Amino acid sequence: MVNKVEYPVDQVRHWLEPGPVVLLSSHWQGEHNIMTLGWHTILAFSPSLVGCMIDAGNHSYEMIRQSGECVINLPTVDMAETVAGIGNCDGDDLDKFSRFNLTPEASQRVAAPGIAECHASFECRLHDDALASRYNFLIFEVVHARVKPEPAWPQTLHYAGEGVFRTDGEVLDVSHLFTKVS
Amino acid sequence: MVNKVEYPVDQVRHWLEPGPVVLLSSHWQGEHNIMTLGWHTILAFSPSLVGCMIDAGNHSYEMIRQSGECVINLPTVDMAETVAGIGNCDGDDLDKFSRFNLTPEASQRVAAPGIAECHASFECRLHDDALASRYNFLIFEVVHARVKPEPAWPQTLHYAGEGVFRTDGEVLDVSHLFTKVS
Repeated sequence: MVNKVEYPVDQVRHWLEPGPVVLLSSHWQGEHNIMTLGWHTILAFSPSLVGCMIDAGNHSYEMIRQSGECVINLPTVDMAETVAGIGNCDGDDLDKFSRFNLTPEASQRVAAPGIAECHASFECRLHDDALASRYNFLIFEVVHARVKPEPAWPQTLHYAGEGVFRTDGEVLDVSHLFTKVS
Repeated sequence: MVNKVEYPVDQVRHWLEPGPVVLLSSHWQGEHNIMTLGWHTILAFSPSLVGCMIDAGNHSYEMIRQSGECVINLPTVDMAETVAGIGNCDGDDLDKFSRFNLTPEASQRVAAPGIAECHASFECRLHDDALASRYNFLIFEVVHARVKPEPAWPQTLHYAGEGVFRTDGEVLDVSHLFTKVS
């Protein structure tokens, strides 16, 4: 067994961040925007709550706080360059939908559009901003969800820092070991 | 392009939870414990902050709140059955280290032991419990980190609900597209 060696605490994200990278789309005062986000967690099933750490330096941050809405879109591996590109330009300069040839898709419950090319779109309303000032951590309720019925297991992107994504691999069913609610 | 169809909002975790599943080890009043956790997010680089939603029904919850400490351990795909097993039994009944043949590993900065078999161990101190009562959301500071130097890209586990994990796949370098801090 290989032994662990000391590791810089400020790079722990390389190991823990890899939830699927998502694209947040927003709408405020006639303007659309999209940002790339890797720092989020599920917080509850019902209501369906997702916490997102959205750096206040993003143009999207104020649009989302002012409108109290966004759409969390799930990009797939074929969109890796688009995801990286969106994360490396500023929405106050350009329309990211047209710059990256993405199709805005009307939402059911919020004004912010979804992104048609993404595998899933989760419409969100701001639920709790108690930790907004301390950590830029916003808690959203998913109020409507749409997912492409195929493929059942798309390859999503997991950011590991330094410009590197990891994609999804094999599916492993260990449900025979589950006795609790899964 | 396949169109999205409506999806139950309380199952959104299937798509967004897949950060790497981790094992939280804890120590309180002479007792060790381990729990499986899938709901966490990086919140800041420095200090190195990680937010974890720890269901208060877990025996570990009170041990971690009382001691103000835990270790976040990163299991790999060969540990899938152990990870599922730990998540499906109760630490008030048994010693999970001995039940699952795991090796407690002395930590540098906290009393809680790491798990030698895991790829990485991140020693944590409770940093902020402002959202503990509302969401069981605890924010930890990683105060010491140790990682096995190889393999560089271990296959971790990403929980998708219903007893199914997904493992990590290919590594995709798009760093040529990064102009911002990455």
